[in-house]
Amino acid sequence: MKLYGEDNPAPNPRRVRIFLAEKGGAVEHVRVPMRARGHKAADFLKKNSLGQLPVLELDDGSFLSESVSICRYLEETLPGPALFGATARERAEVDMWIRRLELQLMSPIGQIWRHTHPLTAALLTQYVEFGESNRPRVEQIYRWFDGELAGKTFVAGEAYSMADIIGLTTADFGTFIGVPIPGDCANVLAWRERVSSRPSAAA
Amino acid sequence: MKLYGEDNPAPNPRRVRIFLAEKGGAVEHVRVPMRARGHKAADFLKKNSLGQLPVLELDDGSFLSESVSICRYLEETLPGPALFGATARERAEVDMWIRRLELQLMSPIGQIWRHTHPLTAALLTQYVEFGESNRPRVEQIYRWFDGELAGKTFVAGEAYSMADIIGLTTADFGTFIGVPIPGDCANVLAWRERVSSRPSAAA
Repeated sequence: MKLYGEDNPAPNPRRVRIFLAEKGGAVEHVRVPMRARGHKAADFLKKNSLGQLPVLELDDGSFLSESVSICRYLEETLPGPALFGATARERAEVDMWIRRLELQLMSPIGQIWRHTHPLTAALLTQYVEFGESNRPRVEQIYRWFDGELAGKTFVAGEAYSMADIIGLTTADFGTFIGVPIPGDCANVLAWRERVSSRPSAAA
Repeated sequence: MKLYGEDNPAPNPRRVRIFLAEKGGAVEHVRVPMRARGHKAADFLKKNSLGQLPVLELDDGSFLSESVSICRYLEETLPGPALFGATARERAEVDMWIRRLELQLMSPIGQIWRHTHPLTAALLTQYVEFGESNRPRVEQIYRWFDGELAGKTFVAGEAYSMADIIGLTTADFGTFIGVPIPGDCANVLAWRERVSSRPSAAA
């Protein structure tokens, strides 16, 4: 297998690297330089017609994209701890939290990036007023998340899971673009400390 | 088990109903009237703190939200055909297509609904120019999807799957809000005919 990705701060390739670090698995990495638009080059579009990273090349020569789908495949094919839950109920809970964090938190952070950040202004038409409207939304969701984390060690319960990986990569990307965790969200900040102190967070 | 949902055209509860029809399973339904803001009532927020539908109440009294997570749980606990794929490779492919259709197609259709439709104007601040900018994006994604469907019976290959359910509910919701499949997307239109002709589509 071969993993096409990009260095930090790109959040989606990092998800797979953290996942692999938690599994204790190794996959050959190929860097695709996003600033040089390597992910939009004709040759790369044959691997993922959407021109997005990461992409996993399987040993049969086929390609798989979408960070979470790649991790699901690795969950089933690599040894190591269960990161998508160990029972049907746990798997549903982890999946729910992956979706909540992606749809409620990563989505508005992505809109702030897409519609207000100077790095994307050169490439795309921005609707700045709309982009800015996502800032209070992100704060609101962090406060909701803070309440949901009360009494929990990890996002989906007592076991570290893919939901923590989604949360950490989202929070770190938010911080990178100037949308940090609000200072009064004590549970979120403590959780972030907890997941950031794991060796996998260096990925 | 008990399923809290809403009638059509709400796309997310319909996903679970189609899934159940394909499985041949039955779950007690409780309608939560969205126009009357039943999903934002204090009592309902105890079931899903995000105030969204659908929600599955399990026999142990716990709750599970997110349409796809509910279907994943039902996939593991009900008999019937595999709708998330039958092998690790198939499961990854179905998951990739669920994500592609949600993130690339449902997301901009949702923004058109959220930021341009009269029904949401009364409830929320709209950024109409941004909302309108999603129309060409939806067309572009439908054309990409049309190419990807060439030679395929269903979204993820030869077997009907959850990805078809996401695609159908998204396309039907788009049509409802005035964002139809472009007339020259012959593969998408033929696929929609194919999935709409199944008895489950009446759900």
